[in-house]
Amino acid sequence: MEPKLNTYLHDAQPRQLAELQEWLRIPSISTLSAHKGDVHRAAEWLVTNMRQAGLENITLIDTDTQPMVYADWLHAGSDRPTVLIYGHFDVQPVDPLNLWHTPPFEPTVRGDDLFARGASDDKGQTFIHVKAVEALLQTTGKLPVNVKFIIEGEEESGSGAINRYVPAHADQLAADAVLISDTHILSPDQPAILYGLRGMWRAQITVTGASHDLHSGSYGGAIHNANQALAEILAALHDSTGRVTVPGFYDDVRVLSADERASLARVPYGDKEILADSGAPAVYGEPEYTVVERTGARPTLEINGMWGGFIEEGFKTVIPSQAFAKISCRLVPNQDPARIGKLVTDYLKQLAPPTVRVDVQKSHDGAFAFLTPYDTPAIQAAGRAYTQVFGTEPIFTLEGGGIPVVNVFQKELGAPIVLMGFGLPDDNLHAPNEKFHIPNFYNGIRTSIAFLQEMAKL
Amino acid sequence: MEPKLNTYLHDAQPRQLAELQEWLRIPSISTLSAHKGDVHRAAEWLVTNMRQAGLENITLIDTDTQPMVYADWLHAGSDRPTVLIYGHFDVQPVDPLNLWHTPPFEPTVRGDDLFARGASDDKGQTFIHVKAVEALLQTTGKLPVNVKFIIEGEEESGSGAINRYVPAHADQLAADAVLISDTHILSPDQPAILYGLRGMWRAQITVTGASHDLHSGSYGGAIHNANQALAEILAALHDSTGRVTVPGFYDDVRVLSADERASLARVPYGDKEILADSGAPAVYGEPEYTVVERTGARPTLEINGMWGGFIEEGFKTVIPSQAFAKISCRLVPNQDPARIGKLVTDYLKQLAPPTVRVDVQKSHDGAFAFLTPYDTPAIQAAGRAYTQVFGTEPIFTLEGGGIPVVNVFQKELGAPIVLMGFGLPDDNLHAPNEKFHIPNFYNGIRTSIAFLQEMAKL
Repeated sequence: MEPKLNTYLHDAQPRQLAELQEWLRIPSISTLSAHKGDVHRAAEWLVTNMRQAGLENITLIDTDTQPMVYADWLHAGSDRPTVLIYGHFDVQPVDPLNLWHTPPFEPTVRGDDLFARGASDDKGQTFIHVKAVEALLQTTGKLPVNVKFIIEGEEESGSGAINRYVPAHADQLAADAVLISDTHILSPDQPAILYGLRGMWRAQITVTGASHDLHSGSYGGAIHNANQALAEILAALHDSTGRVTVPGFYDDVRVLSADERASLARVPYGDKEILADSGAPAVYGEPEYTVVERTGARPTLEINGMWGGFIEEGFKTVIPSQAFAKISCRLVPNQDPARIGKLVTDYLKQLAPPTVRVDVQKSHDGAFAFLTPYDTPAIQAAGRAYTQVFGTEPIFTLEGGGIPVVNVFQKELGAPIVLMGFGLPDDNLHAPNEKFHIPNFYNGIRTSIAFLQEMAKL
Repeated sequence: MEPKLNTYLHDAQPRQLAELQEWLRIPSISTLSAHKGDVHRAAEWLVTNMRQAGLENITLIDTDTQPMVYADWLHAGSDRPTVLIYGHFDVQPVDPLNLWHTPPFEPTVRGDDLFARGASDDKGQTFIHVKAVEALLQTTGKLPVNVKFIIEGEEESGSGAINRYVPAHADQLAADAVLISDTHILSPDQPAILYGLRGMWRAQITVTGASHDLHSGSYGGAIHNANQALAEILAALHDSTGRVTVPGFYDDVRVLSADERASLARVPYGDKEILADSGAPAVYGEPEYTVVERTGARPTLEINGMWGGFIEEGFKTVIPSQAFAKISCRLVPNQDPARIGKLVTDYLKQLAPPTVRVDVQKSHDGAFAFLTPYDTPAIQAAGRAYTQVFGTEPIFTLEGGGIPVVNVFQKELGAPIVLMGFGLPDDNLHAPNEKFHIPNFYNGIRTSIAFLQEMAKL
């Protein structure tokens, strides 16, 4: 890296961190309607910051749901590739709030980590690329490739607006590669490139027994308790080995080849590591698959939320009329979320005894899983960028989380997707005490610069 | 009934109802610590009302938990029997509040019903006897028997104080019969006398998997979801016929004789009636027992509350670290709540897979079920009182709810317990829109007077 840029990056660190903290103070929770204004404020903040960074054509795109921000710099020349950078500025809810050591929207540095909701997922990782572009423009006045940004505000609530926007604006967004940083590497010293992500289908289940809550003394033993019926239905969704029992659930699941299983076995993450990260007393799940395979290459059905009856302090000997669950399936290639949704819904209704009624309300259309060959030139360019900055070649692996918009990019833009993550496995995504490893933030900016430079050579 | 008393009772109705509404406005929820002051205010209100009624030695008994009120009138002569009247002025919580048609603590008359939390359970039924004594004292200056009142403020939260008070004050409370109105009759035209009540054991279950909430993308498939583990454990507590699967649970259950089953079959309440009352789509439970037997003579295990993970608006694809349930068992003679508690706790721990930890926290020591022969003279006196006022002989039956203090009275005072209820099966006890049938309130006052007069003849 040239000395002037190197010095700039060193000197800019305190300001870059302070700016990120300012963005993280905006509680842009897209799943809660009360925070709609905050999501918009986070978009406005990004617009201002992008202007200072030297980006052009900066647009706050208001939609029926949550806003997006577009920006570009297109003066590298028509012979140079174009990179589209995607990220999101909305964040997950923060409950249970009492488990946070410091408030989720008061970003706090402890040791080498920055604690805040959205620090890693995804404001911090998105901000890396804004600062990379800024560093190049301020030290050299130009970028080695053409760059476009499309940053959305509802990744955590279905990506509805961008899923509609991309097909309608494929020309505006046209690119030779799509760069996304919304994943994690294996450790601060071991970068990784994901070549597959799981998809998603989710729904809320409502079990209704009696028409109103009943006294358990007068009715207990003769009317089915909705909590009990829900527990009985939910318990029937997995067998004792952790395999999902929904008929047909695994029909379309991509079978791992011996070569791919050998490659995945190189990932230094197993029972010991997942137990240390999770604090669970024992590992769970399909015994014929490794932890990396279970979380990356196998589909799941999770009960994300469950409630019914009296859940306050004290006791109330009630037979609840209704009980509820929020469930989600992580999907793998080649599962179709619509088909899985139908299979799960049909099975839930089939499990319902005559004593209750079961309703299933899907939350959105779901997302397909994503898989891309890792010999693609843009992905190899990302690998060289990591190696330059981290001093270690990345490992190629699969990840369990999904990025809903990836499929739309792949389908509508026809460009390879480069998943260049800078999070860590213990970042507490979607949980209390989310954090971002600050050295990854600074190394991320350097890696983003190196990637743009490597792309210029293609 | 003598004309003067009859006229008095007719004219007093609007005032009696207005007084009851005033008492019902006090939100005396004993299970919620925020309402501790309200429980005390409900006791103070009763003290004032009892003074106006002409009772003597009125005492507000403060305790470590909730207060009680004692009062008496002991001038009938030592040759006359003494009746101890028990009731309670604390009430159940009111959630889900949005299902109430009118606010729970703004008592509202609609048609022949008075809607309010506590209207039937148990302020309304307790107040019947205060107004009966008042009517006799104000029209005749005396009572036909000696009367004592002990009214508690924590029936809905374990009756801790009165359970300690009765053994220590057996002389003060000594009586020839204990009269309790905290149950229901079959219809406004069909009185009933309960000769058995179910007991109770209850606990909170905590299932802990990971040490913190996890992202279902990164960990799903390899760490046991606490909601799922809880559902699997709870689902294992009943078989498909509704029978509790806890080993030894039914060991001590009293076997019904053919005679008793024939007597219970006279109760005009079956599948059709319980479906109409509950609004459930089908009846549940042990097929070899009738609805009356299931709810009166068979023990149960209910999940009164259940919660874990993300239960707010929207979605959060989390694997919760913990999940919780509040369970309760209704017990029958001769089940020992301590033994049942141990059996249930042991079984819950046995059901726990190695992937989670299960903790069981019992809420109190529980209560034995209650059973008394119905040829006892005091119970027969109650039967004659009902017949005089309602014009119909009462049916003898069993009830599913429990009144925790009944066992203490039976053991410490050695007096027969007379369960003279004035509620109705559809009073929505412990549920939204609790109500009290106003004709039952007025008929209850007359029946209480008739009972005291019948007791004087024994």
